[in-house]
Amino acid sequence: MGEEIAVIEGDGIGREVVPAAVEVLEAFDVDFEFVRGDAGDATRERTGEALPAETYELVADADATLFGAAGETAADVILPLREAVDSFVNVRPAKAYPGVDAVRPETDVVFLRENTEGVYAGHEDRLSEDLSTLTRVVTSSASRELAEYACEFVADGRGPMGDPDEGFTVAHKANVMRETDGRFREEVLSVAEERGVDADEELMDAFATKLPLDPTGYGVVVCPNLAGDVLSDLAAGLVGGLGLLPSANVGHDNALFEPVHGTAPDIAGEGVANPTAAILSAAMLLEYLGHVEEGQRTRDAVEAVLADGPRTGDLGGDATTDEVTAAIVDRL
Amino acid sequence: MGEEIAVIEGDGIGREVVPAAVEVLEAFDVDFEFVRGDAGDATRERTGEALPAETYELVADADATLFGAAGETAADVILPLREAVDSFVNVRPAKAYPGVDAVRPETDVVFLRENTEGVYAGHEDRLSEDLSTLTRVVTSSASRELAEYACEFVADGRGPMGDPDEGFTVAHKANVMRETDGRFREEVLSVAEERGVDADEELMDAFATKLPLDPTGYGVVVCPNLAGDVLSDLAAGLVGGLGLLPSANVGHDNALFEPVHGTAPDIAGEGVANPTAAILSAAMLLEYLGHVEEGQRTRDAVEAVLADGPRTGDLGGDATTDEVTAAIVDRL
Ligand SMILES: CC(C)[C@H](C(=O)O)[C@@H](O)C(=O)O
Ligand SMILES: CC(C)[C@H](C(=O)O)[C@@H](O)C(=O)O
Repeated sequence: MGEEIAVIEGDGIGREVVPAAVEVLEAFDVDFEFVRGDAGDATRERTGEALPAETYELVADADATLFGAAGETAADVILPLREAVDSFVNVRPAKAYPGVDAVRPETDVVFLRENTEGVYAGHEDRLSEDLSTLTRVVTSSASRELAEYACEFVADGRGPMGDPDEGFTVAHKANVMRETDGRFREEVLSVAEERGVDADEELMDAFATKLPLDPTGYGVVVCPNLAGDVLSDLAAGLVGGLGLLPSANVGHDNALFEPVHGTAPDIAGEGVANPTAAILSAAMLLEYLGHVEEGQRTRDAVEAVLADGPRTGDLGGDATTDEVTAAIVDRL
Repeated sequence: MGEEIAVIEGDGIGREVVPAAVEVLEAFDVDFEFVRGDAGDATRERTGEALPAETYELVADADATLFGAAGETAADVILPLREAVDSFVNVRPAKAYPGVDAVRPETDVVFLRENTEGVYAGHEDRLSEDLSTLTRVVTSSASRELAEYACEFVADGRGPMGDPDEGFTVAHKANVMRETDGRFREEVLSVAEERGVDADEELMDAFATKLPLDPTGYGVVVCPNLAGDVLSDLAAGLVGGLGLLPSANVGHDNALFEPVHGTAPDIAGEGVANPTAAILSAAMLLEYLGHVEEGQRTRDAVEAVLADGPRTGDLGGDATTDEVTAAIVDRL
């Protein structure tokens, strides 16, 4: 039996870019079994729930999941799905491509975002008419697990430089969140030291200033959950938008892959969405499942098409999703 | 008796740029009495405390304070000083200037950052060997007070467009922090509606993507404390660094003005620091105390010198702090 891939298109352009990514996966001689599940705004409208239990189970039981996007219900869908795959790290590469207009064409950074705690652990209370609180959570175990992953990631040459010695930067706000981010920072740096991996650090606000000024100053960046959310989205702005950025929610024995972009309601349904982010997410899925060559071929085909193939409107072209997808499949 | 201005140089280039700003203030026919206080790393080394009680009292009792920068002790100095002036809003304009190399020369944004709560309220606990927590605090009263300030700020034509109808954007993460940022968002939007001020909203991660892509999409931006810290520092990167950015910590009957930059240990003591951010902070101080014309003259002089006067090394020139300051005073 083949590997089971859960496919959740979700809402908006998710319904256009996920099929494009599946088309790419199907182009390879790999034994995938695709099983479909529903989630998102339309699902909530139909069933009363944004994330039905069947979909959660489907994702939990699959070998990997390809997810598109959800609208208003995004948090209700993606946060539980990250849990369903037991994801402890969100891998977010932000790379500018030759031929694509970018604010900072030199950008080539990979964020390794803690994926379970911080403010996302989300214990909130309404303590009075006037006052609400949120309990932010940081554990040594999650911080160390993320750091171990980062060390292996770098050692395997998966950083932007492909150099096992390139090290990483930890971004945090331990000067204010001394106990929580202090714990995060200390554990991450201490794992790096144990493993002999070079690590430096940056306050997250300083990072936000420096990245646009000189993106070449950073490679692999390890962050707490919300810092990773915001700083990786900043990097997305520097490479020319969300249309290019894939991501992987990696767990111990399962993973979910999704473009960083949302449902793009302004263009949804028109068949003109950029499938690149979803297809690069499929490349990450291929690599995760050990189909490393197929993953690399997918990346190469995407780069070739970005350089001189048809492009969608967000990149200044007028090609459709289908045309771009066909061009990529053609080059595989 | 004149107005009492507390002057705290702090560490590093604070000792160079604050005297420059004082020189500008002294050039006007305004009756200021300058009183000096110590704070920062050097003060801690000498006295055991980064922020001696006398300095806190000095700032609390002054009509306004001009602060430079502190090194490692920055948080120990600036957070209590914000309290000393009872500051509820941190005003952070980020504007690119003609003639200055900027990643995004169209940037002209003013952040109004909540200045008392969020993660900065900072109740942290070490609950076990493995687990630490931080209690993030959001109140309706602080959110509404910030929003009232934002409405007046806009109505007074102090936004980048100078247009009383320009409205503002509230940036938050209420899709994840539903109760706390939900409260913030709701209160800010409801005050805007009561006051007849246009307000739209943006998730803080989406804001971080969109600002570099198109800074003209934003003018006045109202944020929770940490969001304001990070997003305004991002804007700093887009206008060409921290050397140009002033800020005001405004309270009910007192205020503290500080450049957004730090102590710049790499160039401290050499007399080559860019005094612009400190001098623009002095301009904000002048305006706060009602010396509106003097404030405007200071801004105009700074802009004229940025356009064609001497410049410090961070802006590609080789002028000293004194030369730039003299050029600005010359043009007042
Ligand atoms: C939709 C939202 C809950 C989510 C997050 O904050 O993690 C999104 O912004 C992301 O980065 O995947
Ligand atoms: C020094 C630090 C505590 C401070 C903050 O986080 O507010 C600084 O980054 C700032 O923005 O003024």
